[in-house]
Amino acid sequence: MPSHEDKVRVVETYIAAFAKGNPEAVVALFAEDATVEDPVGSPAHHGRDAIRAFYVASMATGAKLTLEGPVRSTADYAAFAFSVSLNYGGEKRVDVIDTFRFDEAGKVIEMRAYFGPDNMQGF
Amino acid sequence: MPSHEDKVRVVETYIAAFAKGNPEAVVALFAEDATVEDPVGSPAHHGRDAIRAFYVASMATGAKLTLEGPVRSTADYAAFAFSVSLNYGGEKRVDVIDTFRFDEAGKVIEMRAYFGPDNMQGF
Repeated sequence: MPSHEDKVRVVETYIAAFAKGNPEAVVALFAEDATVEDPVGSPAHHGRDAIRAFYVASMATGAKLTLEGPVRSTADYAAFAFSVSLNYGGEKRVDVIDTFRFDEAGKVIEMRAYFGPDNMQGF
Repeated sequence: MPSHEDKVRVVETYIAAFAKGNPEAVVALFAEDATVEDPVGSPAHHGRDAIRAFYVASMATGAKLTLEGPVRSTADYAAFAFSVSLNYGGEKRVDVIDTFRFDEAGKVIEMRAYFGPDNMQGF
């Protein structure tokens, strides 16, 4: 089971990968058969190939992430609040909360992103 | 399906109920067969009677909740970051993220709380 510090490191790596526009650095955080449901309620991306395609497209928007408050962790989960800033046709902001579930090896096996139209400003 | 505003109202009622020390006001937000897993990884409280007992005990600690950032909502979920302040034997703080899943009637059918020992200060 990953420690709190292990989980925080994964979250920080995730955020830094967006800053660098490096989708491979995100894909490497996920288990081979992981799922990404972003936003919750949409069809999940399943497996590293689908996850890679999703993050390549996400990062192509120029999205930058800023952590808002401490990473929460319990059992095999981490949860964290953050804002996404986008800059095309004016400044845009999305407020999001993600949950990561980890496997024994410390890889993310399930990611869920909570945000909707009411969390989007400037669109 | 409850709207974003409906979900925000439930979250605000939840926080206000702690401020007033009124567990019944929280219980009324939940569906009859709801589950409360607080923290995630612990056995869930199932049904309104178990949920009432849990919140009576929680509020007996004098816990007060402060929302940290906007409520996120998508599909039948809301997620929100908050801090809990406690004042016995000195000031204590816990940083938490909760998710609420709603039924069609706008009642909370599933609550999950993400926090662990590394999110607790002053204990």
